[in-house]
Amino acid sequence: MSDHQSTLRANISFVTLGVADLARSRAFYVAMGLEEHASSNEHVAFFEMSGQLFALFPVDSLAHDVGRSAGDPGQGVTTSFSQNVPHEADIDRLLARAQVCGGTILKQASAPPWGGVRGYFADPDGFVWEIAWNPKTRIDEAGRVHLGTH
Amino acid sequence: MSDHQSTLRANISFVTLGVADLARSRAFYVAMGLEEHASSNEHVAFFEMSGQLFALFPVDSLAHDVGRSAGDPGQGVTTSFSQNVPHEADIDRLLARAQVCGGTILKQASAPPWGGVRGYFADPDGFVWEIAWNPKTRIDEAGRVHLGTH
Repeated sequence: MSDHQSTLRANISFVTLGVADLARSRAFYVAMGLEEHASSNEHVAFFEMSGQLFALFPVDSLAHDVGRSAGDPGQGVTTSFSQNVPHEADIDRLLARAQVCGGTILKQASAPPWGGVRGYFADPDGFVWEIAWNPKTRIDEAGRVHLGTH
Repeated sequence: MSDHQSTLRANISFVTLGVADLARSRAFYVAMGLEEHASSNEHVAFFEMSGQLFALFPVDSLAHDVGRSAGDPGQGVTTSFSQNVPHEADIDRLLARAQVCGGTILKQASAPPWGGVRGYFADPDGFVWEIAWNPKTRIDEAGRVHLGTH
């Protein structure tokens, strides 16, 4: 595998906001002109921008998935930036690199209930990055991500 | 002007993290493999991803530009999502729309010291969006943004 798979050189595939009231936030962004993707459901809202996915996820659900409590002072997780990688093995490689570079591993590669595999690290300020391999997304030649495999 | 200019349908042009120590954060992301753009300087670090810009900006500077104090409980500004628009008049239109939709205008369209024009609104959770017109960036046909005019 080439070295680019162990860097963050690619796009931010997903920006996920942890929201207090999913219905309220969904209504706001739909009113603002974003179009929900068909894979949205009652637990999460997905919007496909040009080559990037934007998601609204209840903040407690996001914090739970990251492995932190939304209520811990200074440890709340309100946003996650994700890089989708083409191979599952890239997750371990990127997490290891983040640790060497001064980041903190929040969750080793493991499988969430919705499929795929993901791990999390925090940068020096505590900003949360998810490294994800997801067979339900497609990564195009420019490194941009699309929901669905076609 | 067509209606799409008064929506958030386009890409997130910029993701800006408000960081505690710019040198530390810059070193981290460079070590992670991101390549700094030539327009970076001692006040801000820019990285060009595929069609999206990623910036590191001291959290106090970011809060000041938004018009909030980084220290106000629950009002701290740690991240800003920006949509770059093709026309200056689009800023007022989008801010007005955000207000109608239940958002809060944080700063009306005005000129920051580094050029261009920008305004800010908060979504229902307080997530900060900047709407910016910047003659130093180019927006391609897909709505993706690039630093520089060529």
